[in-house]
Amino acid sequence: MKLYGYYLSTNVYRARVALNLKGIAYEDEIVNVLKGDAASPGYRDLNPQGKVPALRDGDVTVTQSLAILEYLEEKFPEPPLLPGDLVGRARVRGLSLAVAGDVFALLPSRVRDRLSGYLNQDEAGVRRWCHDWVRQGLETLEASLVDDPATGTFCHGETPTFADICLASLIQVARRYGCDLAPCPTVRRIYGLCEGMPAFRDALAQNQSDAPPDFKGY
Amino acid sequence: MKLYGYYLSTNVYRARVALNLKGIAYEDEIVNVLKGDAASPGYRDLNPQGKVPALRDGDVTVTQSLAILEYLEEKFPEPPLLPGDLVGRARVRGLSLAVAGDVFALLPSRVRDRLSGYLNQDEAGVRRWCHDWVRQGLETLEASLVDDPATGTFCHGETPTFADICLASLIQVARRYGCDLAPCPTVRRIYGLCEGMPAFRDALAQNQSDAPPDFKGY
Repeated sequence: MKLYGYYLSTNVYRARVALNLKGIAYEDEIVNVLKGDAASPGYRDLNPQGKVPALRDGDVTVTQSLAILEYLEEKFPEPPLLPGDLVGRARVRGLSLAVAGDVFALLPSRVRDRLSGYLNQDEAGVRRWCHDWVRQGLETLEASLVDDPATGTFCHGETPTFADICLASLIQVARRYGCDLAPCPTVRRIYGLCEGMPAFRDALAQNQSDAPPDFKGY
Repeated sequence: MKLYGYYLSTNVYRARVALNLKGIAYEDEIVNVLKGDAASPGYRDLNPQGKVPALRDGDVTVTQSLAILEYLEEKFPEPPLLPGDLVGRARVRGLSLAVAGDVFALLPSRVRDRLSGYLNQDEAGVRRWCHDWVRQGLETLEASLVDDPATGTFCHGETPTFADICLASLIQVARRYGCDLAPCPTVRRIYGLCEGMPAFRDALAQNQSDAPPDFKGY
């Protein structure tokens, strides 16, 4: 199995964590979006969306991080990353989409380029945009978790699910953009557990083969 | 079953189409995001994300349009809105997320308000933002469909799936923001089929009970 992406992409991080949690070996194929690799004709042949991650399994290509998680969950059911019940699955998917969809779509380089381009934002303005959406995403996630009896040791129950993977990816960008985590004790508590797990740790940007040697993470 | 939303929300439109395709009766609960209804404490008790749609099924609340589609698909499998095979499901989910996640997260009123607020965009600037992301979303979807042998009468095979529902929702915002559909013949062809189906037609903004009588659609 091959995972197309690059060390800094937090969308790719989600796929890495899922592969690691399921114990699936994979090779990295480096596609550095910041250098324009994702727009190259070769990559667009593989993924016409021109985005990372893409997962290649034999002659099958799967795009979009949450679709990759669903694919891995169906093909390699153990350990499960979705709850066993309909209502639990719906909750986990709702939490996941609120993060991976609603927040991360506002952060990629194509959006930042637009802000610095025709919207004339300087670097501080672009950072503020990212910071504020991540902060809002954290608050929304905290509000969704804090009083819900379905929240357990992890976002849903006692083992990690898609929602924890999304939560952990949100923490990565929260650190990048300097968001205060104090107002989000439940999110912090859960990330504390994730952080201690090799599957999450091995997926960090600084632990990827294409990370510059002097990059220590955020 | 109750669907929380309002006539103009294209995220709610996706849930309406899925309910209609599966022949599930539901009641509308009007939550007008533009008037701030989604931020009210009462609605936040139901959906801490403060967004629409939310689906209420007995005492279960499901948030996020694609999570609602997955929930309906699991609970009411007929007619299926996902392919029967693993690879097909992955493709449909990848297409759906590229639209419902990557494009629609850039368009809601909270994003438009931010553009007109601290980014000082006038109405034309906000429209240009929305127009350009929808156009890019259309081009990405066209590129993903046009040469793929898995594309059939609909986005995937011979019956509508999540991907067609997402495609149709993209057409709604393409009309709203005046995007040229000429560069997207495959998308247009498929929407032509959807448009003729009562499940899609009944879900249009202008056919909702809370649409102003003089609103004829875009």
